[in-house]
Amino acid sequence: MKIEAFTVQGIPLIQEGDDVGAIISKLVQLDDGDIVAIASSVVAKSEGRVLRLKDITLGAEAKRIARANDEDPRFVQAVLNESEEVLIESPFMLTQTHAGHICVNAGVDRSNVQDGYVLLLPKNPDASAKRIKDTIKKETGKQICIVITDTCGRPFRIGQVGTAIGCTGISPTKDWRGEKDLFGRTLKITNEAIVDELASFANLMMGEGKDATPVVIIRGVKWQEDEGGVCKIHRPDAEDLIKGALRASKDMR
Amino acid sequence: MKIEAFTVQGIPLIQEGDDVGAIISKLVQLDDGDIVAIASSVVAKSEGRVLRLKDITLGAEAKRIARANDEDPRFVQAVLNESEEVLIESPFMLTQTHAGHICVNAGVDRSNVQDGYVLLLPKNPDASAKRIKDTIKKETGKQICIVITDTCGRPFRIGQVGTAIGCTGISPTKDWRGEKDLFGRTLKITNEAIVDELASFANLMMGEGKDATPVVIIRGVKWQEDEGGVCKIHRPDAEDLIKGALRASKDMR
Repeated sequence: MKIEAFTVQGIPLIQEGDDVGAIISKLVQLDDGDIVAIASSVVAKSEGRVLRLKDITLGAEAKRIARANDEDPRFVQAVLNESEEVLIESPFMLTQTHAGHICVNAGVDRSNVQDGYVLLLPKNPDASAKRIKDTIKKETGKQICIVITDTCGRPFRIGQVGTAIGCTGISPTKDWRGEKDLFGRTLKITNEAIVDELASFANLMMGEGKDATPVVIIRGVKWQEDEGGVCKIHRPDAEDLIKGALRASKDMR
Repeated sequence: MKIEAFTVQGIPLIQEGDDVGAIISKLVQLDDGDIVAIASSVVAKSEGRVLRLKDITLGAEAKRIARANDEDPRFVQAVLNESEEVLIESPFMLTQTHAGHICVNAGVDRSNVQDGYVLLLPKNPDASAKRIKDTIKKETGKQICIVITDTCGRPFRIGQVGTAIGCTGISPTKDWRGEKDLFGRTLKITNEAIVDELASFANLMMGEGKDATPVVIIRGVKWQEDEGGVCKIHRPDAEDLIKGALRASKDMR
C-alpha cells in the first residue's frame, strides 16, 4: 500500500455562514476515494458555534466547580451547557457531550477564537460531515468521505491525539473478525477504529496554532463505504467499565 | 505539508534471532528523516518472546480469574506474569505491563503465533527500538526514527487503534505550549502525542491477519530528534485520575 497526504493551502479564516464544502471544493482537486479530514474548529465556526462569555447566565454548579478548579465560572457554565454528563469534575472537567463524545471540557475551546469568546464543538458532527460531503459531491462530482477531527487527551497516557468526532461516507471501523491470521486461524477480536487512526494522522499534519492548516486530504487508503457516523463508536454505557468506575468514584465523594 | 507512506514488501515470517533492523535495511531504500514504524509482533518474535502454554506454571490467582472470565488459566497466568498491576480483572483484564504500558491482557496475543503458544510484547520496547535504529544506521547510514506499534483498545470508544509502545530517535510529543494561536494569544495546553498519531496511521496501513505488512515507512513528516522513549508518555500514577478510579472500584469489591 502506498498513500499520500497533503494539507490544503489557502483556507481562509472561517466565519459563521461560510460554506466549508464549497471552499474545499474550490481549493483542491479531489479524486474519487479521497478522505477529507477537517478540523472541528472550522466546522464549528461556520455553524456559528461561538459564544460570548459575557452572554452566559451562571448557575450555582458552575460557580462551585469554578472555585474548585480555579477557572472562569462562565467557561465552566459553557462546558456544563454542552454536557450530557460530568464524569470528572475536578481538577479538570471530563464530560460527555450531548452528541455522545467524551472529552475534556466538552471540547469547549478558548484557542483560535477572539478574546472573550469560546468555541464549541459542532452540535451534531456526523450531520455536519454529511452536509459538507453533499456539497463536495455536488460541486466536484467526486465520491469522497469526511472525517471531522478534534484534539483530545486520553487516560493513562500523556499528550493529546487527533480523534474523529464526526464522519460520513466511511465505515468508522474495519472489522477483521473472521479473517485468517498468519497461521490460518480465525481472528477473534480486532475491530479497528480506522476513523480515529485517520483523524490522528490528519491532526498531526494540521498542526496547532497560527500556522495550522485545518483541512488534510489522505489519498490511497481503501475504506468501506457506509453512512457511518462516529456515533456508532461511542461505547454503550453498559459496556463501559471505566465510565462505571468514574461514576462510582463520583458517588463516593 | 505533503507526506507519503508505504508498506515494506517482502518481510519474511520472523523467527527468534532474526535481525529486524538488517532485514528492513535490505528491503527498502531509506531516506534521512524517514519514520520506520514496526509492528510489535515482529519485534517480539525476533526477541523470542513466544511462550508455550503448556510450559506455564499456574497459580491460584490465574485459576480464579480464568473461572470468572471463562478463559484458559494458562493464558491468564501469562498475562499476570507480564503485569505490574491488574487494573480491571473481569470480564476482561486491563493491566499495566512491567514496561509501564496499560492495555488489555498485557498485550499477550494468541493471533499470528503457532497453536499452543502465545506472543508477548517486547520486554523493553524502547530498548528494542534503539537496537533496531542502531542497526539501520550502521547498515544504511541514514538518520531515521523508529516507532513500535501495537493495536490497543481504549476507554469510551469502540474499536482498537494503533498505539506506540516503543520509540527512539523521535520526541514522543510535540509541545505547542507557548506558540501563538490565530488571534496572537499563547497556546496553553496542547502537547501532542505524535508517536501515537504516527502509530495509529501506520497500524491502519499494516492491516491485520495473514496479509498484514508489519513495517511501514512514513516520509515527509518533520519530527524532533530526541532519545525519546514511549516511557516518557506513560502518565505518572499521581496524575492519573482514571487509574485512581479503577483502583478504588477494585478495592470496593
